[in-house]
Amino acid sequence: MISVVLLGAGNVATHLYKAFSNSENISITQWYNRTRASISSYANDVDITDSLDKLKEADIYIMAVSDDCIEQLSIDLPFTNRFVVHTSGSVAMHDIDKKNKIGVFYPLQTFSKEAEIDFSEVPICVEVYEKENLQLLIDLAKAVNCKPHKITTEQRQTLHLAAVFVNNFTNQLYRIGHEICETKNIEFEILHPLIEETAKKIQHMSPFMAQTGPAKRNDKRTIKRQLKLIEKEEHEAIYKMLTTSIKKTHGIRSTRIKSQKKEN
Amino acid sequence: MISVVLLGAGNVATHLYKAFSNSENISITQWYNRTRASISSYANDVDITDSLDKLKEADIYIMAVSDDCIEQLSIDLPFTNRFVVHTSGSVAMHDIDKKNKIGVFYPLQTFSKEAEIDFSEVPICVEVYEKENLQLLIDLAKAVNCKPHKITTEQRQTLHLAAVFVNNFTNQLYRIGHEICETKNIEFEILHPLIEETAKKIQHMSPFMAQTGPAKRNDKRTIKRQLKLIEKEEHEAIYKMLTTSIKKTHGIRSTRIKSQKKEN
Repeated sequence: MISVVLLGAGNVATHLYKAFSNSENISITQWYNRTRASISSYANDVDITDSLDKLKEADIYIMAVSDDCIEQLSIDLPFTNRFVVHTSGSVAMHDIDKKNKIGVFYPLQTFSKEAEIDFSEVPICVEVYEKENLQLLIDLAKAVNCKPHKITTEQRQTLHLAAVFVNNFTNQLYRIGHEICETKNIEFEILHPLIEETAKKIQHMSPFMAQTGPAKRNDKRTIKRQLKLIEKEEHEAIYKMLTTSIKKTHGIRSTRIKSQKKEN
Repeated sequence: MISVVLLGAGNVATHLYKAFSNSENISITQWYNRTRASISSYANDVDITDSLDKLKEADIYIMAVSDDCIEQLSIDLPFTNRFVVHTSGSVAMHDIDKKNKIGVFYPLQTFSKEAEIDFSEVPICVEVYEKENLQLLIDLAKAVNCKPHKITTEQRQTLHLAAVFVNNFTNQLYRIGHEICETKNIEFEILHPLIEETAKKIQHMSPFMAQTGPAKRNDKRTIKRQLKLIEKEEHEAIYKMLTTSIKKTHGIRSTRIKSQKKEN
């Protein structure tokens, strides 16, 4: 049984709380937040506190707070030599005060308060300073049915960058699709199956292989027609930039294939 | 029973062939392609031909060929007054030669030869010139368990534009995520669950509500750190443009909320 103190009350903290509560191998010793109100609705289920001085002893302290607060919170902790981790994709492990043993427990997923998450699908990126603590993080990930991945700080920050592209930027493209539909009174829901299939496809095919559409085919007539149809300058700029990017990705490859053929 | 002649042998034609074959209410009278070799492997299952002159009579002729070939193929058809449709998202219905009755049967989905499609999830956008043919297209869509949507040419072209954003451009962001992972020897597969969840989330939440991440939070430190981490100029330009786009989308809203509060 792993005993955990959870610190913070944002989206990640809330989803971790739910996942930990459902695990037979984890006991939540305490849930801390600097404002009690955010977690008071859980007071019947778990020991809650808004005072760092009242923190109880546990195997691990998980700081699921916003990036900017991690360093200060780790300094404010009133104990030493315990195991303290953060859950951020981009903050360095060494930003955690060294008076405690330090590590990272980064769930690579998008968390909204409103959306339920199947935690067993979430990869957990783990990192430790003292090797002897690695197993605890691996056990913790497995206790919520997640796949742990031991990675370096640089790899985690790179993954976080890639995640911004495939998650936040992708979602913004959905938003633009939504806006474009609205201008002509089309229900955005018609695009839902396409969006799901686009995401599903690359689960068993590389994005390079999965690409289709006018840019990939270098279909100039369709591209020209679509540029005329776009009403917002901002959408036009994004259309042009991503069309160029697709052409570049696929153009290089097709030149190579041609020159190989010539050699044969 | 609807009798169909299918023309073309690309991704859309092949997926339509499979879906039609599996339907009890559709009989494929013939499959035409200008080169016999592309469809000859189906010769045991269906009447195939590479000669327009040998086309048999059917309720509907579906031209699932590339955009640039639609007009010419419709001119080359050696009959008149039959029902001929194309399957393109962007070509005008009126590009089909008026010697026949014309329409559009546009399946709004991404088709790769390698990827199996659950056709019952595919929205079919239908359009006709002669009203009396609408029901046939609706029946055809329903015969492959698809949801038919009657839309105008302008709406279809707008949908196709939106589809380029949420499918082709999104897939290019996946590709960039893949490239970024490769530079640091990280398996792209770690991002698969995030990609699936991002797509799933907007099935029950607007993309506006679903947005998260550094741009939405206006987290300048993370944005600065990520821009430093990016190695390719092209990725940097896309990062900056989409970050600005997210800020704009959410900045306007937050200003509005503030001014509403002031009024109260």
